[in-house]
Amino acid sequence: MSRTGARLDELGIVLPTVFPPAGNYLGCSQLGSTLYVGGHGPANGDEIVVGKVGGDLSLEEGYRAARLTGLSILATLEQELGDLDRIGRIVKLFGMVNVAPGFNRTPAVIDGCSDLLVEVFGDAGRHTRSAVGLAELPFGIAVEIELIAQLH
Amino acid sequence: MSRTGARLDELGIVLPTVFPPAGNYLGCSQLGSTLYVGGHGPANGDEIVVGKVGGDLSLEEGYRAARLTGLSILATLEQELGDLDRIGRIVKLFGMVNVAPGFNRTPAVIDGCSDLLVEVFGDAGRHTRSAVGLAELPFGIAVEIELIAQLH
Amino acid sequence: MSRTGARLDELGIVLPTVFPPAGNYLGCSQLGSTLYVGGHGPANGDEIVVGKVGGDLSLEEGYRAARLTGLSILATLEQELGDLDRIGRIVKLFGMVNVAPGFNRTPAVIDGCSDLLVEVFGDAGRHTRSAVGLAELPFGIAVEIELIAQLH
Repeated sequence: MSRTGARLDELGIVLPTVFPPAGNYLGCSQLGSTLYVGGHGPANGDEIVVGKVGGDLSLEEGYRAARLTGLSILATLEQELGDLDRIGRIVKLFGMVNVAPGFNRTPAVIDGCSDLLVEVFGDAGRHTRSAVGLAELPFGIAVEIELIAQLH
Repeated sequence: MSRTGARLDELGIVLPTVFPPAGNYLGCSQLGSTLYVGGHGPANGDEIVVGKVGGDLSLEEGYRAARLTGLSILATLEQELGDLDRIGRIVKLFGMVNVAPGFNRTPAVIDGCSDLLVEVFGDAGRHTRSAVGLAELPFGIAVEIELIAQLH
Repeated sequence: MSRTGARLDELGIVLPTVFPPAGNYLGCSQLGSTLYVGGHGPANGDEIVVGKVGGDLSLEEGYRAARLTGLSILATLEQELGDLDRIGRIVKLFGMVNVAPGFNRTPAVIDGCSDLLVEVFGDAGRHTRSAVGLAELPFGIAVEIELIAQLH
């Protein structure tokens, strides 16, 4: 069994089903040993977390949406790579929060994804990032995150 | 004649003139065999498509603006590379839509650029991306897109 | 003494203290000879420039905030690399302006950072970029910029 798979079991994490792209694009794209993962949202099967953080949703709900977005990214990575052990390191993420006017605690929201990546990959999950507030996200999803990973 | 040039002819596409950067920056920047194209807008000579999609502009007008933005990117690439055949693959794009409040069908807008890239480059044009709604774009342009391409 | 250090002296520039990440992430992350710098804001010690450009802040104040953001990025780079001479070239930046509704002269704001990079690094500081208007930025900062640099 893969080391990352065993770690997910240990954490009690079951990955969601892979969310299909919502247009004419790929979920991720490889360039040499660099993997670009496009924008993912907080989706688990048919359930999608929508709403504006700081308005419809609390900071805590935003945090959980960012964590779910991270799980959705991991599901795409597992499908693409076959085995999450092929990930050498998470390099960077760009975190976008669907904000109600005046809500600017976006770093605390995107920590939901960052915390997950460090839980799963340890030091190899530590990354740089931006965490900012967007006017609108596709279909009103609460969070959208894209990511760059380095493969072994 | 270049293969991509022939394909553009076949599609009846004439590239717009290269739009000059609107500040102290370059239209694109090469890093090894990776080409970063900075933010481009829907410009064709002096004509620039401005307005908020879902307000001033319909979804269909937004889609056409995204297609024109893709053409503007291709014009910059042709100038930079001399020949579009040097593009091995489109890796990723980041698509930004100037949205009216409440408009969140941003993936359907950015498909205007994604569809163009697949028409022109075939499978090599398939990429990952984000497609999100921005509060404001430079000079009120309807769409802004930046892109990463891999060179042969 | 480092060439870049001498150039900073010549320009009368004193770098601010390194701003600590505002969540579970790193200030920058290296991938081979590519360095990704995450989102930085206009911070100098305890002083942080907050407000919406085009509302609370003028274009000129936004420009100075973007310059200060560039200085904050240089401080992080110096800490990470030990010597700024290790930077071969600035490749790209993504510039985000915290905008009041209707303010779209975002390229003129982000020029504050672009101009700085060219002053410090000369031609090696010339980069591609996007410069766009965000709904909200962390803690209400006026500008946030992330950057990609190539190392020697």
